[in-house]
Amino acid sequence: MFLSGLIKDFSHRKTPNDVVEVHPSNTETAAEMETLQHLPSPSSPLTVKTMGEFVHHVDAVMERTHHGGGWLLSGIICINILILGCALVSSSAFNSVAITAVHRQIFLIILLLLTMLWMLFYTIITSRKNQAVLFKDSHAGPVWLQAGLVLFGLLSFLMDIFKIVNYVGYLHCDSVVKVAFPVVQAVFLFVQTYFLWIHAKDCVQLHTNFTRCGLTLTLSTNLLVWMAAVTEESVHHTEIYDLNMNISYNYGDKKCKCSHSACDTFEEAFYYLYPFNIEYSLFASAMAYIMWKNVGRIVEDHSHHKAKFCPKEVRLGPVMGILLVVAGIATLILYEVQILKEDREKRNAALLIHFIMNIVIASLMCLSTVIGCIVYRLDHREHVSEKNPTRSLDVGLLVGASMGQFLISYFTIVAVVVTGARGYLNALNLAWAVLTVLQLGLQNYFIIEGLHREPFHVIREAALHTNACALQEHTEIDVVVDSNRPNYFLTLCPDKPSWKRRVLKEVCAFLLFANVILWIMPAFGARPQFDHSVEIFFYKYTMWTAIVNIGLPFGIFYRMHSIASLFEVYLIS
Amino acid sequence: MFLSGLIKDFSHRKTPNDVVEVHPSNTETAAEMETLQHLPSPSSPLTVKTMGEFVHHVDAVMERTHHGGGWLLSGIICINILILGCALVSSSAFNSVAITAVHRQIFLIILLLLTMLWMLFYTIITSRKNQAVLFKDSHAGPVWLQAGLVLFGLLSFLMDIFKIVNYVGYLHCDSVVKVAFPVVQAVFLFVQTYFLWIHAKDCVQLHTNFTRCGLTLTLSTNLLVWMAAVTEESVHHTEIYDLNMNISYNYGDKKCKCSHSACDTFEEAFYYLYPFNIEYSLFASAMAYIMWKNVGRIVEDHSHHKAKFCPKEVRLGPVMGILLVVAGIATLILYEVQILKEDREKRNAALLIHFIMNIVIASLMCLSTVIGCIVYRLDHREHVSEKNPTRSLDVGLLVGASMGQFLISYFTIVAVVVTGARGYLNALNLAWAVLTVLQLGLQNYFIIEGLHREPFHVIREAALHTNACALQEHTEIDVVVDSNRPNYFLTLCPDKPSWKRRVLKEVCAFLLFANVILWIMPAFGARPQFDHSVEIFFYKYTMWTAIVNIGLPFGIFYRMHSIASLFEVYLIS
Repeated sequence: MFLSGLIKDFSHRKTPNDVVEVHPSNTETAAEMETLQHLPSPSSPLTVKTMGEFVHHVDAVMERTHHGGGWLLSGIICINILILGCALVSSSAFNSVAITAVHRQIFLIILLLLTMLWMLFYTIITSRKNQAVLFKDSHAGPVWLQAGLVLFGLLSFLMDIFKIVNYVGYLHCDSVVKVAFPVVQAVFLFVQTYFLWIHAKDCVQLHTNFTRCGLTLTLSTNLLVWMAAVTEESVHHTEIYDLNMNISYNYGDKKCKCSHSACDTFEEAFYYLYPFNIEYSLFASAMAYIMWKNVGRIVEDHSHHKAKFCPKEVRLGPVMGILLVVAGIATLILYEVQILKEDREKRNAALLIHFIMNIVIASLMCLSTVIGCIVYRLDHREHVSEKNPTRSLDVGLLVGASMGQFLISYFTIVAVVVTGARGYLNALNLAWAVLTVLQLGLQNYFIIEGLHREPFHVIREAALHTNACALQEHTEIDVVVDSNRPNYFLTLCPDKPSWKRRVLKEVCAFLLFANVILWIMPAFGARPQFDHSVEIFFYKYTMWTAIVNIGLPFGIFYRMHSIASLFEVYLIS
Repeated sequence: MFLSGLIKDFSHRKTPNDVVEVHPSNTETAAEMETLQHLPSPSSPLTVKTMGEFVHHVDAVMERTHHGGGWLLSGIICINILILGCALVSSSAFNSVAITAVHRQIFLIILLLLTMLWMLFYTIITSRKNQAVLFKDSHAGPVWLQAGLVLFGLLSFLMDIFKIVNYVGYLHCDSVVKVAFPVVQAVFLFVQTYFLWIHAKDCVQLHTNFTRCGLTLTLSTNLLVWMAAVTEESVHHTEIYDLNMNISYNYGDKKCKCSHSACDTFEEAFYYLYPFNIEYSLFASAMAYIMWKNVGRIVEDHSHHKAKFCPKEVRLGPVMGILLVVAGIATLILYEVQILKEDREKRNAALLIHFIMNIVIASLMCLSTVIGCIVYRLDHREHVSEKNPTRSLDVGLLVGASMGQFLISYFTIVAVVVTGARGYLNALNLAWAVLTVLQLGLQNYFIIEGLHREPFHVIREAALHTNACALQEHTEIDVVVDSNRPNYFLTLCPDKPSWKRRVLKEVCAFLLFANVILWIMPAFGARPQFDHSVEIFFYKYTMWTAIVNIGLPFGIFYRMHSIASLFEVYLIS
């Protein structure tokens, strides 16, 4: 009954709230229920002192909440669904006689239906009781994640439509499940996108145990859809390769003919849309995971230190960046046109241009990141000391997503080095892979270090607050810390911009645009990994397809995440 | 300069400590150096109030330290070594022409030498400066981990000796690297076991950045040795299977004959010892990871609330448990003898006994865990609210290790269900797998919930302290929380043992022994996964070997970890 400590602090405030469940394992205890009636409503003004104590207590509650029964139960459910699904998916890939795509799809349909049921239940509950969601995490479900979800959701929907039309043509000789699955998935796409759009920022306080389990169900469903799509795509790639571009089997019985003429077109079309579905599942998984972490969390409704975005502050970085994007798009179009030609010479020329362009981009990025890191050393600032679970999660997702590109690059390096890297194309491919590894490491360092530095506007606001604008060295920041909570006494004139901050902002802006073009290229179909044959020969087709299909979506996710993070670093600097 | 806050609290204490580095990114700042001179020596007595503030500050420092440059850099190094190694190991498995075992071993030798160099450097530095390790984490490197490390280290050493003797016989026609690798590995085993034995509990404060990088190097080296061993073992299994028990190739050139007669014996012997080497690498990885987490950490030297171990308290649980262990060992011996017979009938009988024994064990464990969980509900206690990184890590390792057994069980379930589970052996196999999944889930819940409950002896001590021994319901615990720090006023007579606590202790003791027998069986060679053929046919030999070789060592690790955790839960209850 730790929560009863809250009574002492807040017994003088009686906000007319209903009873809210916060601590999942002790919900029945009447005493605790009572204490929560005394919780301050998030918007009510509190003295700094009381707020500090409040946050302290809340932290303790959070810690306990995280280890409650629901946390554990939902984790166990997630592990079980995932490993069972993993067994099904991989056995359908390795032993397609005993477990067919139909078995796998029935399993996925059940999961999709269960998840939708839970989402409907959740939406109804939270819309009825206005105490269900007292707190919102403003960091969760950022704009780029939501926009990406809708974009990839629409393209996945298109894929499902194509699939339905295609498989309807096989209905007379193939299982009805093949049509049912895309139908259910299409409905699921709408329900889930709506659900995540509305509820991504929720810190649920009601039915926390049940909500946790529902969210891990959502998480594991999305991960399994992702896993199934990756496997299907790899198998399909291998089949095309094996049959030398002779599509139209994959339907168990090769004698099964499509009953309408548009089949082939639709089938080719929906396979092009697979990567977007893979990406959609990753986005949805990330958002479900963030929501799961936020269940039962009580966040301070801190009046965000909004940093203003002044695009005039920088010039060189954005200009260089936009030039790079334009050049990148030009070479991408050239590449896409030339790579489809029959002529081997022209295809090599396309690869040459693509490789050189990527090497130039990666080198420039490495260079500017190094400059940025040096400026970090010079422009020494405090690290933010307060805890921020969303930021830790953000950093975790960033580093995790970068693994995908790391994986592809290292496999390329090994393949090219071992085979001797003969010919200029192999040498360029190697250089690109090495530079990418370097660039990823540097950029991760730059972003994470940047996110953890004390934001400039916070220091500035503190300075304005204390009116302590003395004239020392114009960039020296001297912070004196009170024993209780940090107050910043700043010796910096707020209207004098420092060159270090300008350089950092230029670097951020440049890296942001560079990541945009590195996102555009793979997202819009550039696949040099399959157009250049070294890795395919070295690792065999199936394995290399699996590596690329796992690594590339993470790589695309990483670029989008980097863009958002770099924008944040830009604002902080 | 948040640390300067420490000055205020502790400026009255001037312990003659040297300058110690705590915060990695600001090490050069003289002001911070100074503050650390005022850190209290860990053993010095402090008032509770001051201690509370101290811990508060330390937490903030920790948070920052964790996100320092060294943390990031060491993470990036770890990722790079791991993914590069992963590419090398998997390409040596999938493309044994271009990348041979020799390439892989050269890479591993370099890593082993670098790791040893760092370990020597670390040992010398810390032995010279007595300020290098100010704090020790008493939870890190527990006895079972250290004992396991030494045990598996010795068996791995034996494996290396056998390898050396074996490969010396091929020296005239095979690479010298094949002999060099086990030699280096044998030296490494000694250096690393010594290093981890001495330093596992260190919370390093000196050269934190460098130490972090060294530890991630150790971590990734061990993980790669593990990965290489798993791959080699899987390839070897597949080769034996393919060649129908005709050993003596695997040395590139099949014409290469061993120059001494004992080769075949030694080769067979060292392949039997592979699982122990795999286990050793896992243990070392876990310990290196814990050390890495502890770098720069400042731990309270809290006078451990030592719970006494009174074996007389319980009777039924240990008796049942020991009976189970004896019965298990008897059936194991029977199994090992019978399974080697040529007669198919006898082999099936051996499998039958083994399956039934395991089903009985798993059922009894499930039953007792359910009883334990019900008692948790009845004997309601507070969750521990203070933060404990080692405990979180412990829980993470436990859940992570349980994945191995989950993986094997679910793959078995899918294979048996899909093939129809004909025959009593398949039915028993299925029942065993389902019960194992259930047992793992329940046991994880039981242990984690148990570890997070407020220890009984803490409540008891608080009760003795406040001398508040009133007579209410003899098991009702009523805790009142002060607004600053929790003080427990207990309404329980310390000399009156509650039946709930007795039941919990009985359950813990029984589960402990049951885990012992479940550890003994796979650790001493029972491999029904390979003696029973359903999964091999279903998944093909290579894939199934890989699954078992990855899953089983984690399963063994899990059992040992469970034993240690259950002992802790026993003491707490």
